[in-house]
Amino acid sequence: MAGIREPLHPVPGFRFLGRNIGIKDHTPDFAVAVADRPCAAAGVFTRNNFPGAPVIVGREHLAAGRLQAVVVNSKNANAATGPEGVENARRVCRALGQALGIGERLILPSSTGVIGVALPVETLERACREAPGQLAAGVDPLRRFAQAIMTTDTRPKAVSVKAGKATLTAVAKGAGMIEPNMATMLAYFFTDAELDPVVLKALLTGAVERSFNRISVDSDTSTSDTAVVLANGHAGKVAPEDFGAALKEAAVYLAREIARDGEGATKLIELTVAEAPSQPAALAFAKSIVNSPLVKTALYGADPNWGRFVMAIGKVFAYPVPLAGLRITFGAGAGALTITAGDQPAETLRRISEYLRYPEVHIRIALGAGAASETVWGCDLTEGYVKENAYYTS
Amino acid sequence: MAGIREPLHPVPGFRFLGRNIGIKDHTPDFAVAVADRPCAAAGVFTRNNFPGAPVIVGREHLAAGRLQAVVVNSKNANAATGPEGVENARRVCRALGQALGIGERLILPSSTGVIGVALPVETLERACREAPGQLAAGVDPLRRFAQAIMTTDTRPKAVSVKAGKATLTAVAKGAGMIEPNMATMLAYFFTDAELDPVVLKALLTGAVERSFNRISVDSDTSTSDTAVVLANGHAGKVAPEDFGAALKEAAVYLAREIARDGEGATKLIELTVAEAPSQPAALAFAKSIVNSPLVKTALYGADPNWGRFVMAIGKVFAYPVPLAGLRITFGAGAGALTITAGDQPAETLRRISEYLRYPEVHIRIALGAGAASETVWGCDLTEGYVKENAYYTS
Repeated sequence: MAGIREPLHPVPGFRFLGRNIGIKDHTPDFAVAVADRPCAAAGVFTRNNFPGAPVIVGREHLAAGRLQAVVVNSKNANAATGPEGVENARRVCRALGQALGIGERLILPSSTGVIGVALPVETLERACREAPGQLAAGVDPLRRFAQAIMTTDTRPKAVSVKAGKATLTAVAKGAGMIEPNMATMLAYFFTDAELDPVVLKALLTGAVERSFNRISVDSDTSTSDTAVVLANGHAGKVAPEDFGAALKEAAVYLAREIARDGEGATKLIELTVAEAPSQPAALAFAKSIVNSPLVKTALYGADPNWGRFVMAIGKVFAYPVPLAGLRITFGAGAGALTITAGDQPAETLRRISEYLRYPEVHIRIALGAGAASETVWGCDLTEGYVKENAYYTS
Repeated sequence: MAGIREPLHPVPGFRFLGRNIGIKDHTPDFAVAVADRPCAAAGVFTRNNFPGAPVIVGREHLAAGRLQAVVVNSKNANAATGPEGVENARRVCRALGQALGIGERLILPSSTGVIGVALPVETLERACREAPGQLAAGVDPLRRFAQAIMTTDTRPKAVSVKAGKATLTAVAKGAGMIEPNMATMLAYFFTDAELDPVVLKALLTGAVERSFNRISVDSDTSTSDTAVVLANGHAGKVAPEDFGAALKEAAVYLAREIARDGEGATKLIELTVAEAPSQPAALAFAKSIVNSPLVKTALYGADPNWGRFVMAIGKVFAYPVPLAGLRITFGAGAGALTITAGDQPAETLRRISEYLRYPEVHIRIALGAGAASETVWGCDLTEGYVKENAYYTS
C-alpha cells in the first residue's frame, strides 16, 4: 500500500521521537525532530483565514529563516482557540527549548486534529521535558515520528531522495480536510544540504506549488496546513537546481500518497488536463473535475460516465472551450482508451469500466484549445468518507 | 414529505400531460404543457459552458419573448450530443408544433437525464403526434406533468400562489448535479396573469437569483438548468410587484423542496450568514459552508462539530473576518442555542446534536463584521448520495 517509499534514509545530524503521551488512547500522538545545530529553514502555511495557533507562532519563528526543531501533536489542532491557544503553542516551544537548551524561537510547533478544543498544554509540556532522553538518530525513530503525526491517515508517509551528496528525507500526514493552498496538512523536509534560507524558501514554494497545491481529497482547506524544510548543512553546498529537483520529487511523492490515502478512498486518481488555453484554465478545469462529487462517485463505482467530465469542464464559467475538440483518455501506454464526446460503443465503455477498477487510475483530458497542461491528484468519494466524517468528531 | 404544496390549482387556459413513452421502463418520462394562445414568456438557463441541445434551442425560441408550449423528456439530457442533438431538439418541437397547429418556435424543449447519449427522437416524435388527444385541463394532468419530469427526484414538486386576481402554478424537478447558476434543473411557471415579456424576464431573473441560485445539493452545475415562465393573460393585468412577490414565493418553495429532496439527503439545511461585510461576502461564506463535505457529513451524523464551520468560513480566502465576532445559532425561537468559538460545555453540544437530528435544520452564522445577510439551502451528504451516483449511470 506504499505510504513509505523504501529505502528510507535517516539524515546525518537529525534525531527524532514519536510516542503516545495520552492525547489519543494508545496510538502515537507526539513527535519531535531536532537538529544538532541551527538550520537554514523555510516554510509555507495554510491560506485559511483562521489559521491554527501553531501556524501563527510558526510564521513568527520562521521570520529569521532559522529553525532547529519541530514539535508536533496529533488529535487536537489548537485552532479556533483564541489568544489562549497561541499562548499554549508558545508554552510548548518554551518547554522544549528549555529541555534542549535552545532558543524557543528556533522551534516550529504543529498541531493537527479537532478544531476548537483547548490544547492539553501541561501534558505536552511534560512530554517536552522528557524528550531529550528519547530522541535518537536512525531510521526507526524517523518512522515513529511519521506515525505520531497521523490523524485519520491509514499509513505513515515518508520518502528519501538524494540531492548531490546530500540526503533529503521528507515526512507528511493528511487524509481529510485536504485541498491545501500553500502547503499540505503537515509536511517536514529534513536535509544535510547547505542552502541559504532565501533560496530554500523559493525552492520549497516551487515544489509545494507543483505537489501539495495540486491535490484534493474533499475540497476543504485545513486551518493547519504547514510545509517546512530544515537544512543543517552537514553535507556542504548543493546546487539549488539539484536540491529543487529533489524537493519536488519528494513533495510530489508525498502529495500523491496523501491523495491515495484520502478518507474512505479506494483509488488514487491522476488527472491531466492538456491542450488548455492557459495554465490557470488547465488548473481550473482539473480542479473542477477532481473535486466534482459526481465524477468522484462515478470513479468509485467504475462507471464510465464521461458526461460528468463534460459537466465539470463546462461549469468552469470563466473558460469556455469548444466541446468538439475534447478527447478523454483512460490509462496510459498501449492499452489506453481514448473517447470523444458522443455515443460510445458498449464494448469501449465496458473496457473503460474494467480499467476504472484499478487502485490507481490515470485520466488525460485533451481540450484541443491550446498548449497548456496541468496534472492534479485526487481520490474517489465513497460511503467510507461519509461514515468517517459523520459519526466521529475528527 | 412535502414536495407538492396543497392545494394545487390548475391555471385557466393551460392543458397538461405526463406519461410513459418507453424511455424509462415504466415510470412517466414525457410531459407537455400547452396554452390556448401564445403567451408572454421569459426564461433563464444554465451558465454551464456546455449547455444541452434543448437549452441552445430554447434560448433561440425565447428570443421573441413568446411561447405557447413546453415539451419535456426525462432519462436523457440530450447534452454533449453535438449538432445532431440540436437537430433532434428541433425535430421534437417541429413534431409537436405540427400536431398542435402552432409554430415550432413557440415551443420550449427540455431534456433531463444522462449526458452524452443520443436522444430517442423517433419515440419522442411519435409521442408528440399523440399529444393532442391526451392533453387535459385540471389538477390531475398537472400532477402527471410534475411526475413525468422527475429523474432521481423522490417526489414531484409543485406549488400554487395567488398574484392579485391571477393564479401562478409552478412545477420543478431536481435532486442531483445541483448547484444551479441562473436557474434550477427544470422549473416551469404557468400563469393567467397578463404581463409584458420584458417585465416577466426581470421578475423571473430576480426570483431565480433569490431561490434556485441559493441552493446546492452537490456543487455540480448541470448542463440542463432551465427556468421558464408562461403568462397567457386570461386574468388580465397584475401589478408587477404583486406578480414578482408571487414568483419569488413559488420559486423559494420549489428551491427548498429541491434541496430537501437532494440525492441521498436526510435533511434540509437552511443556512443564514449574517453580519457579513458585504452581500458577495455573505453569499461566499454561505456557499462555502453549505458545500463543504465535512460540514455536510457532520450534519448528517448530527455531530455538533462547529470547528468545521470555522474552517469553511476561513477557506474563503477573499474575505478575511475576525474569528472573535463569530456566533453560531442552531434552531430558531425560544429553544435556539448560540455558541461562540472556544471550548463548549458537553451539555450544550449534546443539545445541539439533538437538534441536528430533525429533518429540517436552521443554522445562523453571525460574523460581527458588517450588516449584510444571505440565506441559502442545502442538504446533508450521506452514504445514499454515494450509492446513488456510484452504481448507476444517471
